[in-house]
Amino acid sequence: MQIIKKKAEIKLALNKERSKGKKIGFVPTMGYLHEGHISLIRQSKDNFDVTVVSIFVNPTQFGPSEDFNKYPRDFKRDSEIAQKEEVDYLFYPDVDEIYLSDHKSFVNVEKLDKVMCGKFRPNHFKGVCTIVLKLFNIINPDGAFFGKKDYQQFIIIKKMVDDLDIPVKIIGCETIREPDGLALSSRNKYLSKNERENATILYKTILFAEEKIKQGEKNLINLKKECIKKLSSNNYVKKIDYFDIRDPKNLKNITKINKNIKELLIASAIYLGSTRLIDNKVIQL
Amino acid sequence: MQIIKKKAEIKLALNKERSKGKKIGFVPTMGYLHEGHISLIRQSKDNFDVTVVSIFVNPTQFGPSEDFNKYPRDFKRDSEIAQKEEVDYLFYPDVDEIYLSDHKSFVNVEKLDKVMCGKFRPNHFKGVCTIVLKLFNIINPDGAFFGKKDYQQFIIIKKMVDDLDIPVKIIGCETIREPDGLALSSRNKYLSKNERENATILYKTILFAEEKIKQGEKNLINLKKECIKKLSSNNYVKKIDYFDIRDPKNLKNITKINKNIKELLIASAIYLGSTRLIDNKVIQL
Repeated sequence: MQIIKKKAEIKLALNKERSKGKKIGFVPTMGYLHEGHISLIRQSKDNFDVTVVSIFVNPTQFGPSEDFNKYPRDFKRDSEIAQKEEVDYLFYPDVDEIYLSDHKSFVNVEKLDKVMCGKFRPNHFKGVCTIVLKLFNIINPDGAFFGKKDYQQFIIIKKMVDDLDIPVKIIGCETIREPDGLALSSRNKYLSKNERENATILYKTILFAEEKIKQGEKNLINLKKECIKKLSSNNYVKKIDYFDIRDPKNLKNITKINKNIKELLIASAIYLGSTRLIDNKVIQL
Repeated sequence: MQIIKKKAEIKLALNKERSKGKKIGFVPTMGYLHEGHISLIRQSKDNFDVTVVSIFVNPTQFGPSEDFNKYPRDFKRDSEIAQKEEVDYLFYPDVDEIYLSDHKSFVNVEKLDKVMCGKFRPNHFKGVCTIVLKLFNIINPDGAFFGKKDYQQFIIIKKMVDDLDIPVKIIGCETIREPDGLALSSRNKYLSKNERENATILYKTILFAEEKIKQGEKNLINLKKECIKKLSSNNYVKKIDYFDIRDPKNLKNITKINKNIKELLIASAIYLGSTRLIDNKVIQL
């Protein structure tokens, strides 16, 4: 595995691979790799000749009061995991290698960035789209892998790629969970023992909503209220940003089930103590 | 010359050229080609193996009250000019080939889009950046040519390319002028005979400012006032959007000349009747 910190160097290395006819799979990450990332890496290795993983905690997707500085970082551990998974190139640039000091250009997917997490993290998806486009331009991959745990991010990136004719195939990968259901996230590390135990309430409530819908519940406004009540009743849940039921294709809000609706996204973001966790499930009707 | 209307088709054709080791030059236009465009085409042909010209009147860069519908179009004439200039590929897509009906993704170069023309055409540069990025992703050129008549556009596109790691070399080309100094523009066609005669006031005033500066004028606030007065005194000048003197590198406003200032951009936008004309000159001190 080659660890590369400079744009020019990774471009050169990947141009060589490309000139040999190799197809390139790309897994962009913010590091602190867990089984979720590993599943993306394995899917890239199964589908492409060369796998590139980037580790870059992207400052432009964090709000001023968010956790950019304390976001967990452990490059030694990450590079050992990547090595073990037989990643070909680990791209690990510094912030000033990626952003010019007077950086001014941003990509935005309008409307989709205003709902769900976008409502609570105003410039988050603008930062995400901008870094993903930049990394795509640097790596020039054939395909790129994103976890569906960040479902809104996955949909926004797919939309950006379609809208802007970006020649990269976007592959969404299923969420990896702990045995008790908690979705893997680098932020789980922030949780105290009690918060960690109670964090299962998030996925449990999503499954509860699914169960209710499968039992015939049509009124999603009432169901959402019931789910929010359920979440609120847990003492470790300090804040509920949203519990939404939407169209998984375009994130449009759905208030009532009718026979034209074939699938639903159930998604939520809550705080366990001061840690913000998100989770979701797409269900077929 | 091949005329191609579909994205998939031009991608295929250019992939073939690329696989033969050909380097691709690109001249994006809105059609109604004049000597300015022709000079861009010739510079592309001098520097690249294959030259692609696009003709696409881009709706997203026009404001709701602007001239998208009446913007001059004459594809037969344009294709004859392109043929004569030995363009290799003429890309001439319909609007619905370029934009999805639910297009939501836009690129923006912040701050630079708020001054000069951006102040009077609020979403113009967002539309320009978005179509240029899309065309770059479709054509995947090695170099792209832009006229410096649209100096702010040239600087904004260069900044977008630098900021977003877009692998395209941007080449700015000198403004082509009528014998009396009027910068060539597809919009000159809108001018009545009297307006056309009086349109020379725009470049004349820019040259007047240059002359004053070369004679030692340091106070640019006063000089701007004098130039605006000069423009206003012409009966055919119906409105002055701006007459600005700025740093040509970053478009920062400059009010006073000191010894650190090595070059200046003198730029203006005015209405001759209902036709908006822009012009500029970069001068060395």
